Amino acid sequence: MSQAFGYAAQSSTSPLAPFSFERREPREDDVVIRILYCGVCHSDIHQVRDEWGGSQYPMVPGHEIIGEVTAVGRNVTDFRVGEHVGVGCMVDSCQCCDACHDGLEQYCAEFPTMTYGAVDRHDGTATQGGYSNHIVVDRHFVLHVPEGADLPATAPILCAGITTWSPLRHFNVGEGHKVGVIGMGGLGHMGVKLAKALGAEVTLFTRSAKKAEEAFAQGADHVIVSTDEAQMQAAADRFDFLLDTVPVQHDLNPYLATLKYDGVHILVGLIEPIEPALHAANLVMKRRAVVGSLIGGIPETQELLDFCAEHDITCDIEMLDIRHINEGYERMIKGDVKYRFVIDMATLEQARQEELSRTE
Amino acid sequence: MSQAFGYAAQSSTSPLAPFSFERREPREDDVVIRILYCGVCHSDIHQVRDEWGGSQYPMVPGHEIIGEVTAVGRNVTDFRVGEHVGVGCMVDSCQCCDACHDGLEQYCAEFPTMTYGAVDRHDGTATQGGYSNHIVVDRHFVLHVPEGADLPATAPILCAGITTWSPLRHFNVGEGHKVGVIGMGGLGHMGVKLAKALGAEVTLFTRSAKKAEEAFAQGADHVIVSTDEAQMQAAADRFDFLLDTVPVQHDLNPYLATLKYDGVHILVGLIEPIEPALHAANLVMKRRAVVGSLIGGIPETQELLDFCAEHDITCDIEMLDIRHINEGYERMIKGDVKYRFVIDMATLEQARQEELSRTE
Repeated sequence: MSQAFGYAAQSSTSPLAPFSFERREPREDDVVIRILYCGVCHSDIHQVRDEWGGSQYPMVPGHEIIGEVTAVGRNVTDFRVGEHVGVGCMVDSCQCCDACHDGLEQYCAEFPTMTYGAVDRHDGTATQGGYSNHIVVDRHFVLHVPEGADLPATAPILCAGITTWSPLRHFNVGEGHKVGVIGMGGLGHMGVKLAKALGAEVTLFTRSAKKAEEAFAQGADHVIVSTDEAQMQAAADRFDFLLDTVPVQHDLNPYLATLKYDGVHILVGLIEPIEPALHAANLVMKRRAVVGSLIGGIPETQELLDFCAEHDITCDIEMLDIRHINEGYERMIKGDVKYRFVIDMATLEQARQEELSRTE
Repeated sequence: MSQAFGYAAQSSTSPLAPFSFERREPREDDVVIRILYCGVCHSDIHQVRDEWGGSQYPMVPGHEIIGEVTAVGRNVTDFRVGEHVGVGCMVDSCQCCDACHDGLEQYCAEFPTMTYGAVDRHDGTATQGGYSNHIVVDRHFVLHVPEGADLPATAPILCAGITTWSPLRHFNVGEGHKVGVIGMGGLGHMGVKLAKALGAEVTLFTRSAKKAEEAFAQGADHVIVSTDEAQMQAAADRFDFLLDTVPVQHDLNPYLATLKYDGVHILVGLIEPIEPALHAANLVMKRRAVVGSLIGGIPETQELLDFCAEHDITCDIEMLDIRHINEGYERMIKGDVKYRFVIDMATLEQARQEELSRTE
């Protein structure tokens, strides 16, 4: 075991605070990673506060991890010490079901082992995430970060990026397609960039006309203010795909009406009951589909990292000192971040030094 | 104009009763058809009673029409007098949008002209359906009935059959697929037969264990009693497709749980708000889809008629005297028909004679 340091929640009501814990010694397939940056995902807040149920404490959140390899297990030949690597939402899966064979470990029949808040399938210990100074991960779940990448701005690609990329690739979105992206936060702004880079004509749906400027800057071709009924009606039967990144309950019906026949409404942000009720006629009358999509598999995450390097795509981020993580959460809840906080782990080391001096 | 005779509703609350009306003279693309048989669809009841809103009266229902060609317009070279033909739910469409070009006239951008209760797009008259002695239809919407077909048992193929066939073909359902058919009425029993004939392994979901015998007789490989929680849980993550023929509100969530990752829940019977609410997690966590599908296009309806002839597939029907149509509706509402009533138009001629003798 080796000593690790991070920020953890001790209960669903306590703020994140400094926390010392242990990481396992590397097993033969493991990669040991010194964490440099970690993105802050809205789902971290949900889990820290047990808003989805089942949270275990203490919990070190964080699943948009960029770091540097410091050691590898004896079976690991595809990663070398000193290399920059990434770890996303998953650190293991059964690796033998259909989904795992298809490179879609997120749909593993036994459910994948999540980066934090889960139980390691080999030793039964709790997994702890990337708001920490190092992590030990099976090589199958470690990504190569292309040389020259902007490291902090790459971190959110591992969740916000792949969550939008996976369905765009699954449905072969590209030239000739009209794509509507609903919402422009961490996921939405990546959806706009990626759909545009894939060749689609991209429209941002937003509740706020003020976001139009930003949307065009991200690459959107058009903006529809979703609260403007006339704009919504003018968009009837227009889109091939809607990428819906809204993480709270909202009425899907007005959006469905903007899909062509055979159009697909892709939910990537919502994991609540769909209310107000979806009207079946909106599906039946035009053979439209509502489909959900969860993060993405490891091979497609590597594909995305390479695609982003090639197309010079990164997330728009604001660096965060981990000592301000609780204020960061409050700002995220208010939508006051463009578009993702990324923690600089240099500030974690400072926090650790402060802790040491306090306890000496 | 030519004199026609049928059964019509004069309002949403009046029973169907004998009715004389006029049919247009054939236009150059028209086929004139003497109606021999007409299936009785549950949607006839909905429209007669204005349960979907917008019904116009008098209304002659019926869109599962089998008849014999008695005359053709001068442009019609593909139908000959004396030939057996069919007419389904549509009698016209714009014939120039993407959907029409794709042979999916049901999704016509201008909405197709329905067989009854609609307005003819050329002369503005009301369309009247197949509970009548003849009909005049554009040749593009007339189907060839294969030689030797069982004529009355073929009628419901034009709606109940094609409604299940269209999505099965769209999703390339066949060997190696596990298909669950939900509900076994007019649509469901055709879904079982067609999915089986396409090579799929077919499971019927039914609320009533008593239907197991019938389901096996129709070709089902397995039966799941949907009210039995243990059976439902044992079926978790099993199916590639669910063909949901239930025409009333029901909880989709327990069924979604029986779909594999990437599984598709196809709604063909429901045109109401989906309540209880669909839980987005049931879609997101396994990339499952809920899709709607409406009847089917003309080319695929012809394909189905040919497929049924080749595979000796017909609907299970009970012949109905049109003079008992109102009792027939009551029995349908109670689910007391296996699985479709088909009106024998010989009884309509008897009704006409009775009317004549009454008025003489």
